[in-house]
Amino acid sequence: MDILVINCGSSSLKYQIINADTEAVLASGMCDRIGISEGEFSYKPANGEKLSKKVDMKDHEVAIKIVLDTLIDPQIGVINSLDEIKAVGHRTVHGGEYFTKSTLINDEVITQMEECIDLAPLHNPANLSGIRACQHLMPNTPMVAVFDTAFHQTMPPKAFMYGIPSEYYEKYKIRRYGFHGTSHSYVSKRTAQFLNIPLENSRIITCHLGNGSSICAIENGKSIDTSMGLTPLEGLIMGTRSGDLDPAIVDYICQKENISTKEMMNILNKKSGVLGISGLSSDFRDLLTAEEAGNEKAKFARATFAYRVAKYIGSYTAALTTVDAISFCAGVGENAKFIRGMIISHLQFLGIKLDEKANLETVGKEGIVSTPDSKVKVCVIPTNEELMIARDTRDIVMNL
Amino acid sequence: MDILVINCGSSSLKYQIINADTEAVLASGMCDRIGISEGEFSYKPANGEKLSKKVDMKDHEVAIKIVLDTLIDPQIGVINSLDEIKAVGHRTVHGGEYFTKSTLINDEVITQMEECIDLAPLHNPANLSGIRACQHLMPNTPMVAVFDTAFHQTMPPKAFMYGIPSEYYEKYKIRRYGFHGTSHSYVSKRTAQFLNIPLENSRIITCHLGNGSSICAIENGKSIDTSMGLTPLEGLIMGTRSGDLDPAIVDYICQKENISTKEMMNILNKKSGVLGISGLSSDFRDLLTAEEAGNEKAKFARATFAYRVAKYIGSYTAALTTVDAISFCAGVGENAKFIRGMIISHLQFLGIKLDEKANLETVGKEGIVSTPDSKVKVCVIPTNEELMIARDTRDIVMNL
Repeated sequence: MDILVINCGSSSLKYQIINADTEAVLASGMCDRIGISEGEFSYKPANGEKLSKKVDMKDHEVAIKIVLDTLIDPQIGVINSLDEIKAVGHRTVHGGEYFTKSTLINDEVITQMEECIDLAPLHNPANLSGIRACQHLMPNTPMVAVFDTAFHQTMPPKAFMYGIPSEYYEKYKIRRYGFHGTSHSYVSKRTAQFLNIPLENSRIITCHLGNGSSICAIENGKSIDTSMGLTPLEGLIMGTRSGDLDPAIVDYICQKENISTKEMMNILNKKSGVLGISGLSSDFRDLLTAEEAGNEKAKFARATFAYRVAKYIGSYTAALTTVDAISFCAGVGENAKFIRGMIISHLQFLGIKLDEKANLETVGKEGIVSTPDSKVKVCVIPTNEELMIARDTRDIVMNL
Repeated sequence: MDILVINCGSSSLKYQIINADTEAVLASGMCDRIGISEGEFSYKPANGEKLSKKVDMKDHEVAIKIVLDTLIDPQIGVINSLDEIKAVGHRTVHGGEYFTKSTLINDEVITQMEECIDLAPLHNPANLSGIRACQHLMPNTPMVAVFDTAFHQTMPPKAFMYGIPSEYYEKYKIRRYGFHGTSHSYVSKRTAQFLNIPLENSRIITCHLGNGSSICAIENGKSIDTSMGLTPLEGLIMGTRSGDLDPAIVDYICQKENISTKEMMNILNKKSGVLGISGLSSDFRDLLTAEEAGNEKAKFARATFAYRVAKYIGSYTAALTTVDAISFCAGVGENAKFIRGMIISHLQFLGIKLDEKANLETVGKEGIVSTPDSKVKVCVIPTNEELMIARDTRDIVMNL
């Protein structure tokens, strides 16, 4: 069963077409600068050359039309007709408290996603544009929404409620939602499988470390706590996001700089994190290069990032009361071996021993980076959100 | 050597006179509603009856005058003349980066404390009022400032820097300072002594849990991380303070409620914490009573508080890489045995075993509440900030 997976941002769109039976990716690519001039389209069939071309795309529908036309192109396409796409799985960001799992899209679902726009003002409108465009172009194809927040809806209230007047939860649904749920779900399941431990009796901490980063405490396959909160700003220090702060700092800087809270949110989301600390770059590869050239600020940004991750692992061990496995994923988690080393150096209290050689060799691939006698297994598990979306979509469509 | 210890709030003043050689408290008491009508003064000599009386005090100087007159009163006083007070130790809140230890007060120190007013707009002016009043009334007596922040000045940059643009540190000194330093210092030293472990080779986590609460990670006697930040708002859920929040919540509520960040700070400092969660009280004793009467919100507030503490202990174990002892102090830490039990139930990963009986019996007094075979010792150590202030003051005055 071929499934089209769509991930719409406000001005971009990533796609994959996946055979959900064999789990093979037939083709993948992206559309960039949608609604802006000088758009770019790329397409890579599994057994063919990568194609890139400049093409203006005034909206998501134009972009998706180009994707679909390319997929069925007699020369370079991977399917014969759009009928072969049995369903579309949409990555959707904020499902609020409405969605505890991936869901077949109907009018009610769209209304509920609209009601969550306040909670994700940048993401949900883009996701909805992609859904509407696909519905228009493939009116008879089932669409499934796979929410970033859904996996975390198993958190208990003591983990999702903030220490603020409870009326704000009742009136505005202000609570911890958590994000990267599709990734944490995939990686925790794969970790249990990879280590041959029963998911339904396991305690796993997953560290999704990329440009956006979050950590999740997973008990018996269920999220019980996670570091992102009402929005994806909370928690770890990220590429450009501050993560945790004394909330008084928001007011303090607003007063000192005479700026609005909206401007402050922009600074905390886009100019902070390792970019703000280092003054150099949000990209951890740039920071490593700078550190190796003797840049102290780059070194400090990386060390501060790693220290925060280590503290969250300690915190989530307490949340779980004990831990069986810790997994790293996403760009930094899968590749930044020195950062993994810094993090693991803090975890002596768990009886964790780093296998130095395995850690250096495990870059961008699955592997165990702790020694055989380490009391807790530490793994690298490349995440695969698209595959998870295809699986969820297939499962829902099969039961229609 | 008799030392007067003064702790000035904006409208209150607590005092003790301590013989710093024997460490005996000669007398103690407080002045309340200073600068407001219907002031109250109390005085309790070590071997006499407690005296309370209504007396209007227009400012801190009037209040201190009453304290001094009472101390030398021929009937109920505990000293013969003010000359017997060899020094005054002032509890001072914010020393910024100027003060890494307790300091003899001179004009430069006062100027530096004034420069820190922005960082503690409620506390530093009150502390300065008390200092000036004492200087006026006892012009020849040395005064010592004992800063709440000083103990934490040993934190490394990776613990005290936030994930925000570094210019905010350079321009405005925005960083983690931490508070309750005098308490964390006292309790960590006393813990090492009580357990007969060498402070200079120890890893201790101190949990100061009161109406204001903070946790500290202490390596070889030095603070390496603590939960309060730029201000005392960050970290744990407290009586009325929110502790950690997604910083985006500040903006979100300001927009929804159409209030200023100043108003928001007031809500987060005074109407949040267990008061905000429960809707009932900021006093943990009230919450216990309500919980025992079946109030679910009170139960939830206590559980949420305990969960946050447990997570911080996990976090600070990672900061320290391992831990030898955990100590509880202050009103909740010393007395709330069920909350201690909830916290400790999360610490299985440290090989901690709660001694149920010892925990129930150790209320308001020193004791070990873990079993003899627990891998980490858990203690209750009543804090004594006044004694710590008297000791620091004596040590400085002796070397003049």
